[in-house]
Amino acid sequence: MSRIAYVNGRYLPAREASVNVEDRGYQFADGVYEVCEVRNGGLVDAPRHLARLQRSLGELRIAEPMPLSSLAFVMRETVRRNRVSYGLVYLQITRGVARRDHAFPTQPVRPSVVVTARNLSYDKNQETARRGIAVITTPENRWPRVDIKSVSLLPNVLAKQAARERGAYEAWFVDAQGFVTEGSSSNAWIVTADGRVVTRPIDNRILSGITRAVLMKVLEALQLRLEERPFTAEESYAAAEAFVTSASQIVMPVVKIDDRTVGGGQPGSVASRLREEFHRFAHLG
Amino acid sequence: MSRIAYVNGRYLPAREASVNVEDRGYQFADGVYEVCEVRNGGLVDAPRHLARLQRSLGELRIAEPMPLSSLAFVMRETVRRNRVSYGLVYLQITRGVARRDHAFPTQPVRPSVVVTARNLSYDKNQETARRGIAVITTPENRWPRVDIKSVSLLPNVLAKQAARERGAYEAWFVDAQGFVTEGSSSNAWIVTADGRVVTRPIDNRILSGITRAVLMKVLEALQLRLEERPFTAEESYAAAEAFVTSASQIVMPVVKIDDRTVGGGQPGSVASRLREEFHRFAHLG
Repeated sequence: MSRIAYVNGRYLPAREASVNVEDRGYQFADGVYEVCEVRNGGLVDAPRHLARLQRSLGELRIAEPMPLSSLAFVMRETVRRNRVSYGLVYLQITRGVARRDHAFPTQPVRPSVVVTARNLSYDKNQETARRGIAVITTPENRWPRVDIKSVSLLPNVLAKQAARERGAYEAWFVDAQGFVTEGSSSNAWIVTADGRVVTRPIDNRILSGITRAVLMKVLEALQLRLEERPFTAEESYAAAEAFVTSASQIVMPVVKIDDRTVGGGQPGSVASRLREEFHRFAHLG
Repeated sequence: MSRIAYVNGRYLPAREASVNVEDRGYQFADGVYEVCEVRNGGLVDAPRHLARLQRSLGELRIAEPMPLSSLAFVMRETVRRNRVSYGLVYLQITRGVARRDHAFPTQPVRPSVVVTARNLSYDKNQETARRGIAVITTPENRWPRVDIKSVSLLPNVLAKQAARERGAYEAWFVDAQGFVTEGSSSNAWIVTADGRVVTRPIDNRILSGITRAVLMKVLEALQLRLEERPFTAEESYAAAEAFVTSASQIVMPVVKIDDRTVGGGQPGSVASRLREEFHRFAHLG
């Protein structure tokens, strides 16, 4: 847990870091968030994360509480105060505190801003990547605006918990047509037998992953073939490789999908190479 | 706004009523709630609300933080301390505070309990009911488990706001088959030309309204014919009457749907009578 959290202008010890019970984030999930990887104490791809945050705020018509550059400063300062070298920084902005009513407050209120940061174990993450993770599939049951990175995450919570209870690390949502949309907290990818790297195109049914976007630059530089198209769970079972991407996992190899072994049960060479190369292409600052 | 709020064992002034920023209700919408009408300082249908709360908690596997009778006591005490005679009491329970991770905490944490209460204007509500409200329809875009009364309410927020911006008071969600599911914070009803009272049957796509359930007893006592079946937006335009039910609105006549006048633009006699009779059948305690 973050030892120091930024809350609406103040850096507070974690125990005192609180928001009012009538914060619309608490009562209505009326807020958005971003998570950045921290490496060597710097933020990975902060400009892209802040641009996506700005878009999420715009879609919900939540006012920007301060300039993006100030948000970046607060994120860096929270990282510094928590002495995070390798880990995550979390930023959440909600519509603010108002008397409970579903509609937006009629009088403008100040959005709430919360930032936390914490260390992760680099060695543990590398070890997980060396072994690869198992995923399960589960019917898509989220609303059709998951392109907005909102805190309305209850279906994701239940999917992730279902994965854990089946000995897996992630759950892939599968839509009514049988296509994988994305994971509960990651984008989903496969590699075909002839080396094409496949992921679903961006629309309102998946989050436009920052790691996903940067990885496309990596693919290009490495002259790997990208295919942006939906794929089914069945295709993923038979894929040469599979992996997920997210800010906290970067490129994480998948070795099992619904109890079916993928690529011989070992992380694939493409996924492993992409993981190694990723940070050469990411922005650190 | 509630002047005194109950938060995890303490009655606090509203300004100090806060929850930790890592409360899962704030970061994941991982919590449930209930709203009871307050009349003459008593709770309307508290046993039914608490039974539904218990079901919601069970569906999400959130532990019951205290016996239901104790929750009822806290709700009454919060009403008393806020000197609410006519108004609402709001109860929210989340999975609790834990280091951010989508899956349930591996170590059990104490669920968070928040209760607020506030006065409403009886005269203003009666005046609204005398005039009737306008509703709009909007495509259903919520997840298929809205039978769980969770705080994952962002689609409801956006629908209600869309209604307000079109001069309406409520938004009815319409599913892919053209059937009305329910309102953003109410159940939806129509009355046919031959006096049948129609509302959608209970399944995972609507909330099992307490006011809805009690109203069925009223219908029976008044020998009005109930028809539990889905109805379309088109059918509602041509209905003799329409109304919505919720704990805060009881029976609220609808006089306009999508800019089409319903029942001559006046509250219907069935809806008005149901509103008058309702509290003879509700439990007050």
